[in-house]
Amino acid sequence: MIRVTVWNENWHEKKDEKVIRIYPNGIHGAIAEGIRSEELSIRTATQDQEEHGLTEEVLDNTDVLIWWGHMRHHLVSDEIVERVRKRVWKGMGLIVLHSGHFSKVFKSLMGTSCDLRWRENDEKERIWVVDPAHPIAEGLGSYFELEREETYGEHFDIPAPDELVFVSWFEGGDVFRSGCTYHRGQGKIFYFRPGHEEFPTYYNKDVLRVISNAVHWAAAGRGATPKYGKSQALEAVSAKIS
Amino acid sequence: MIRVTVWNENWHEKKDEKVIRIYPNGIHGAIAEGIRSEELSIRTATQDQEEHGLTEEVLDNTDVLIWWGHMRHHLVSDEIVERVRKRVWKGMGLIVLHSGHFSKVFKSLMGTSCDLRWRENDEKERIWVVDPAHPIAEGLGSYFELEREETYGEHFDIPAPDELVFVSWFEGGDVFRSGCTYHRGQGKIFYFRPGHEEFPTYYNKDVLRVISNAVHWAAAGRGATPKYGKSQALEAVSAKIS
Amino acid sequence: MIRVTVWNENWHEKKDEKVIRIYPNGIHGAIAEGIRSEELSIRTATQDQEEHGLTEEVLDNTDVLIWWGHMRHHLVSDEIVERVRKRVWKGMGLIVLHSGHFSKVFKSLMGTSCDLRWRENDEKERIWVVDPAHPIAEGLGSYFELEREETYGEHFDIPAPDELVFVSWFEGGDVFRSGCTYHRGQGKIFYFRPGHEEFPTYYNKDVLRVISNAVHWAAAGRGATPKYGKSQALEAVSAKIS
Amino acid sequence: MIRVTVWNENWHEKKDEKVIRIYPNGIHGAIAEGIRSEELSIRTATQDQEEHGLTEEVLDNTDVLIWWGHMRHHLVSDEIVERVRKRVWKGMGLIVLHSGHFSKVFKSLMGTSCDLRWRENDEKERIWVVDPAHPIAEGLGSYFELEREETYGEHFDIPAPDELVFVSWFEGGDVFRSGCTYHRGQGKIFYFRPGHEEFPTYYNKDVLRVISNAVHWAAAGRGATPKYGKSQALEAVSAKIS
Repeated sequence: MIRVTVWNENWHEKKDEKVIRIYPNGIHGAIAEGIRSEELSIRTATQDQEEHGLTEEVLDNTDVLIWWGHMRHHLVSDEIVERVRKRVWKGMGLIVLHSGHFSKVFKSLMGTSCDLRWRENDEKERIWVVDPAHPIAEGLGSYFELEREETYGEHFDIPAPDELVFVSWFEGGDVFRSGCTYHRGQGKIFYFRPGHEEFPTYYNKDVLRVISNAVHWAAAGRGATPKYGKSQALEAVSAKIS
Repeated sequence: MIRVTVWNENWHEKKDEKVIRIYPNGIHGAIAEGIRSEELSIRTATQDQEEHGLTEEVLDNTDVLIWWGHMRHHLVSDEIVERVRKRVWKGMGLIVLHSGHFSKVFKSLMGTSCDLRWRENDEKERIWVVDPAHPIAEGLGSYFELEREETYGEHFDIPAPDELVFVSWFEGGDVFRSGCTYHRGQGKIFYFRPGHEEFPTYYNKDVLRVISNAVHWAAAGRGATPKYGKSQALEAVSAKIS
Repeated sequence: MIRVTVWNENWHEKKDEKVIRIYPNGIHGAIAEGIRSEELSIRTATQDQEEHGLTEEVLDNTDVLIWWGHMRHHLVSDEIVERVRKRVWKGMGLIVLHSGHFSKVFKSLMGTSCDLRWRENDEKERIWVVDPAHPIAEGLGSYFELEREETYGEHFDIPAPDELVFVSWFEGGDVFRSGCTYHRGQGKIFYFRPGHEEFPTYYNKDVLRVISNAVHWAAAGRGATPKYGKSQALEAVSAKIS
Repeated sequence: MIRVTVWNENWHEKKDEKVIRIYPNGIHGAIAEGIRSEELSIRTATQDQEEHGLTEEVLDNTDVLIWWGHMRHHLVSDEIVERVRKRVWKGMGLIVLHSGHFSKVFKSLMGTSCDLRWRENDEKERIWVVDPAHPIAEGLGSYFELEREETYGEHFDIPAPDELVFVSWFEGGDVFRSGCTYHRGQGKIFYFRPGHEEFPTYYNKDVLRVISNAVHWAAAGRGATPKYGKSQALEAVSAKIS
């Protein structure tokens, strides 16, 4: 059983009539419902909860964390960001969706600005598989399509992905590396582009399939448990230095 | 159920008293026995069999092929090599062990000479985990050790691995990228260094754990099924050109 | 001074009126002229010459080889292919253009089918920079455009590039990894997509800039000179085995 | 002319007799002297200077920054760290040496803990070339040696390098990925392991050769200049949100 926590900023869903109509149970609710399976134990958490819903106890019981945020990144507490980041280093899987590219968690794990080109123009997006051996692409053909989406374009300022799984084509002339994997410590990270709040993207069966595949990939095998030591040794000494 | 075929050159085990004592059932037998589990359906095949034991029917029923060869690479038929290579491209996992780095199958999938430094000096080998997030390293600590092994050294003339999982240390002064993953088409490849025929390496529990982990990794999710087309179109035309 | 050899199949330029009008001096002639600079010493070679123009003497005096071929890949002799491949392994740079993805040289260095989606539909191509730190992208902005080109689409069946520099967008709905680097042995390889023979692509200043950048990148620093040894040792022994 | 700034914590060189004897002009002085050439314009800067010697004016005139620090990482101001990081994103090369793996600058560019195994045991280090095509390995053979060095061991908690150039072997049983390249934005980063302050490592000709090669590599071609935009657009809006 893989324990999944779907985290959402949950702000558009309270303020914006259009979004409320599309996601009456929130984006987190739609994703949790959409990837439901016997192999997953799913809970949700939102930014407006105590500790943003990401208490030590919740993270202790999370194998894979899914993250959606957009307008309130700056209001996520640095303490929780550091807590999540350290969990990833210790093996928790992390799936960052869409505008989550600008979340403090993602930026601090990437070491780059994570900026990109961008417009809202209701364009068609085609998501092409560029690594058909990858388990995250399981069950797809050459590509799948979203009739209308927000447009993200290159250059997407991220480190070169460990594995590039998807590249998006946009009607208006842009491309985007829309499915990217990273290892950070013992943890696995997947960034997946689609999911503008004004479109019913998280009801699309291929989008849900990819998220579900990514959950299984990120949870598969926590790998090895190395021992370090320099940090501890050094901190003891350097703390005395000024 | 993952269907595994363990392939072996099976030549030392017939000629060399020392090897016969260590591997009375062949290296293929030791590996098949050593990774046995309820999740795996395992068969073996050897070079001296008809079609080297790799008939279309056998490959049709193989999810992951494990390959050990050493002195008789040049006697593997090009037809079988091409058959195996195309299966990898279509999604069959391939685990190449030790001296299999010089097999025609591996070289044709790498595009390099696959040469390396080498000596037989009965040295200690320590296999260090350099990617603790990788499922192939599942269950290990910082490293594991083999009391005596044949020495391989850098430069190992391979393409930069997609993921580097292990690096070996040898008593006599060498290092070696000993656990390397690659994607080729829809197929996943893992090269794993240990396994000189004169040592009981394939009875070592950590070596067997890695091979077993690699089987699960290579079989996990066949990914997407893209459509191509240029090859077919071009061949039809160019065949007429001289 | 970097010594460059521009190699061309040189077949369309003899048979096809449309191509003859665009490339009266051949594609090789246009490229040689287009990247001319004080830092480069450029010669050309064509498939119809003795040894396809790639004698030992020519390759001895080549730092970077540029390759364009299309319809007559199957008529390039295996001996010359192996000669070129071994030169790459020893440090000669190789730039493979457009339909050269199906050349024997490129396929044997990649270990994959190198197949792709394809159509001739006179579409606009936009070539996006996805690695702005890369010297091959020197001097470009976010992207550059070709008004009409042949369309190549994913999945492009290559190994994951060591570095992905460009991704193409095509009007008709496709994307393509159109600028890819690889190391093979001591040699550097760059695959660059554009260059259909029916369009004046090799007169485009950005295309020429990229090819010129790639020549400098591929020639920069031959790196280290490792010693191997296992191949020689093994061949001496295994040649006696049947 | 490449403009290089060699930055040093410069603390051991003031406090520790042993280090003062080895590096009377500081580690920065030894490196500046050791890589001197007609193609480089070199200055030094130290932590104890105003703004740590890294004023806007200095960075405006720096193509490649070399960084050595050890015990006083925590005393480098966050403002200067962010200033350096943003310069890297805009194309300044960065070479991080030895214990600089724990500098705020490096950690914030990597997104990992950068921890490692460690001991001071005066062991022999052999630095093996694993990518002989790389310009940073220019002029080396299979490996070079340092008679005595501090030991760093895996797992080194960094992102998988874009290119792995060197792997170290240590007498006492460790290996280490000791030459690692990364792209971040338009900037190139090279981490190079050797350089314990108690040994004359920065007088070693191969160490100096590698640092010099890395300077040329990091300065070569600032690549492309993409335009972004989402950050600016979003910040204008989200600043108003609470």
